[in-house]
Amino acid sequence: MKDRAVLIDAALDKSVPLQYPEVINEAMRYSLLAGGKRVRPALCLAACELVGGTIEQAMPTACSLEMIHTMSLIHDDLPSMDNDDFRRGKPTCHKVYGEEIAILAGDALLSLSFEYIARETRGVDAQRVLQVVVEVGKAVGSEGLVAGQVVDIKSEGAGATVGIDTLQYIHEHKTAALLEAAVVSGAILGGANEMDVDRLRKYSRSIGLAFQVVDDILDITATTEELGKTAGKDLASAKTTYPALVGLERSREIADELIEEAKSMLTGYDKMKAAPLFALAEYIRSRKN
Amino acid sequence: MKDRAVLIDAALDKSVPLQYPEVINEAMRYSLLAGGKRVRPALCLAACELVGGTIEQAMPTACSLEMIHTMSLIHDDLPSMDNDDFRRGKPTCHKVYGEEIAILAGDALLSLSFEYIARETRGVDAQRVLQVVVEVGKAVGSEGLVAGQVVDIKSEGAGATVGIDTLQYIHEHKTAALLEAAVVSGAILGGANEMDVDRLRKYSRSIGLAFQVVDDILDITATTEELGKTAGKDLASAKTTYPALVGLERSREIADELIEEAKSMLTGYDKMKAAPLFALAEYIRSRKN
Repeated sequence: MKDRAVLIDAALDKSVPLQYPEVINEAMRYSLLAGGKRVRPALCLAACELVGGTIEQAMPTACSLEMIHTMSLIHDDLPSMDNDDFRRGKPTCHKVYGEEIAILAGDALLSLSFEYIARETRGVDAQRVLQVVVEVGKAVGSEGLVAGQVVDIKSEGAGATVGIDTLQYIHEHKTAALLEAAVVSGAILGGANEMDVDRLRKYSRSIGLAFQVVDDILDITATTEELGKTAGKDLASAKTTYPALVGLERSREIADELIEEAKSMLTGYDKMKAAPLFALAEYIRSRKN
Repeated sequence: MKDRAVLIDAALDKSVPLQYPEVINEAMRYSLLAGGKRVRPALCLAACELVGGTIEQAMPTACSLEMIHTMSLIHDDLPSMDNDDFRRGKPTCHKVYGEEIAILAGDALLSLSFEYIARETRGVDAQRVLQVVVEVGKAVGSEGLVAGQVVDIKSEGAGATVGIDTLQYIHEHKTAALLEAAVVSGAILGGANEMDVDRLRKYSRSIGLAFQVVDDILDITATTEELGKTAGKDLASAKTTYPALVGLERSREIADELIEEAKSMLTGYDKMKAAPLFALAEYIRSRKN
């Protein structure tokens, strides 16, 4: 995973050139290159390789997924949203560049993400590239990330009155949707047939939900230093979380069950080729930040 | 143009369905269906027809251009940007739905715009559709709309110290870029060759610059009621404008010259097919709001 992150970071570095007006490209680069774990790009590359594609075919989409993830963090951190001062151990984008530049940096990253897939993808049938644009678009808009953030905002402070269904909706849309788009896009770019896409979609839904359950657990058990963002924030804001609803122990069990479900989707494939997706599932279960 | 606007409004109405979570789709629809003049969609359809294409081929992209235009208005009006309370004669999106929902509505419209082109375009070669995604992306991101808005924000209050070059940069990026994308995308979708695309790009650059010069003139000469947004705002904020730099009379001459330049690009075409693009150029010169 570390080798992959180095490759992905190099590609991301090239994706946003420093040109006039510099401040906006600096703000985009500040958040994009802040050293995230690159889970979404790694999933995209791994899924592409699993079905017989190459890293090169999937790399532009891998970058675009990280741009989208970054834009969602920049906008979520804004004063009118979650009002967060730290992210990945650094001051948030609006803290450094001001609110108006942070909003625009998010807009520019979102726009670039789609342009980048269409402009930079090589060696893939154009019809498949369009499919990827649709898949990614669904994961972001009012059926994806944005829908999750809206329901999250509207549920805040509601505490125990928010049920497990709403919590699951938030997680599915805020986190799982983009992880799913990462896996499914990689598969489409690598030439997957419909059966592969279905199976990998199931894999991605399980790891997506597990990812957020683990996030909720870490918010309670990890320190601010480990997380690189304010810890205990969910608790402080009486936000609905898995531990709040079903307890810490049961939350851990749920995460384990989801990871096992995900891995069961990979049994039919070549072990070598499936190894990265196995490793990513394990990583999501055991990560410390 | 009125018949076209009716067609476009019907297509826009279908593009954002009212589904859970309703508030975000309501906010998107509130601003998208607020009765703009639909200049960008009309340009896109007209360019497609000029080169022999059909309205159907260009309609999804036409809608997507209006989504992008709307998103840029929603975000520009935010308190941390231009802080505007009225737009198209109605309270701005954040005034009705709150700042956080307005930011997210813009994000969702931007994401949907790309998804919509890829998902809904029929009867056009996939390679051409990808070209359109790239063309539109360039017009929005840190080389387009966003770049223009950044330079605009950074120039505000600087008054006469901002030169004509900077003013032109702002207009080219904030306004002309998307008008250009509208015309060029329409041409690509309709099957244009490179020579057509070049000629129509020149047409669009001239009308794009004229559009903003007329905007600056109207800010001085029209009332708030006529504009549907706060009049005299540029003057009040000591914003650099054409009238401020070269006077009202010379600004009108510049607009006229640009419109004549634009029309000269259409001389080689069938008169009937070129009529909508002629009419749109005239409309831009003589519009009252």
